Amino acid sequence: MPEVRGSGYPEPFKSRMGDRAKRRLGDACGLTRLGVNLVTLGPGGQSALRHWHTLEDEFVYVLAGEVVLVSDAGEQTLSIGMCAGYPAGKRDAHHFVNRSAKPATYLEIGNRTDGDNAFYPDDDLMWADDGNGEYGAHKDGRRYG
Amino acid sequence: MPEVRGSGYPEPFKSRMGDRAKRRLGDACGLTRLGVNLVTLGPGGQSALRHWHTLEDEFVYVLAGEVVLVSDAGEQTLSIGMCAGYPAGKRDAHHFVNRSAKPATYLEIGNRTDGDNAFYPDDDLMWADDGNGEYGAHKDGRRYG
Repeated sequence: MPEVRGSGYPEPFKSRMGDRAKRRLGDACGLTRLGVNLVTLGPGGQSALRHWHTLEDEFVYVLAGEVVLVSDAGEQTLSIGMCAGYPAGKRDAHHFVNRSAKPATYLEIGNRTDGDNAFYPDDDLMWADDGNGEYGAHKDGRRYG
Repeated sequence: MPEVRGSGYPEPFKSRMGDRAKRRLGDACGLTRLGVNLVTLGPGGQSALRHWHTLEDEFVYVLAGEVVLVSDAGEQTLSIGMCAGYPAGKRDAHHFVNRSAKPATYLEIGNRTDGDNAFYPDDDLMWADDGNGEYGAHKDGRRYG
């Protein structure tokens, strides 16, 4: 299955993801109500900007290596067999960062639903689905690029 | 996290699941839109009766051991790092059976949605959600127990 690199974020955020490769397992299985990605972060790579979703539950399960979970509660290192979940609407922004010297691999899973928005407390970005498609915008509502 | 054993199926189906233990990871993380279970099947254990869902996408990822995926297409052995997905509404009934001599562990994930029904082509069972709760019924509609 092909690796997907890059990010849907506008710059300057996109470059900050670093070494991140995804395999879209759910899409490959024909799923539309679940998103399932197998993600490998190289050293310095990030899962996403720190964010939370309005309507999407997210779940991550570490398969190899170590990642640091950053949330409002601080930082926690997760290793093989550890997991984390982020309920829809819980305003605790989170992401994974690989601060180790080796690749780390995890599954990331979410329910797909129309009208989901994501908020990024650390960055001038919000991700909106206004019924006419998804787009990234500044916090004042102006669209990126 | 506690292991959950047993099944919501009525007899004679419940006993057929054999040695099956689940850890409800999604529930433990407070998720309501995703169901995520870490499941271990002992030798002879089954994931479920062979079934398909009307409104639920399902995804499974093997973490340890080997399971046999049984679907309309026949049988396929899945080992560590292999996965399968079952799109909602696809009438290809499926389940996992552990035919090996060792335990097998996998993640099972589904989106949760009201009104989901499940059908079991090999057995006199259907699983219905009629808006007043979920129940198992014979194929002629009579409820079990």
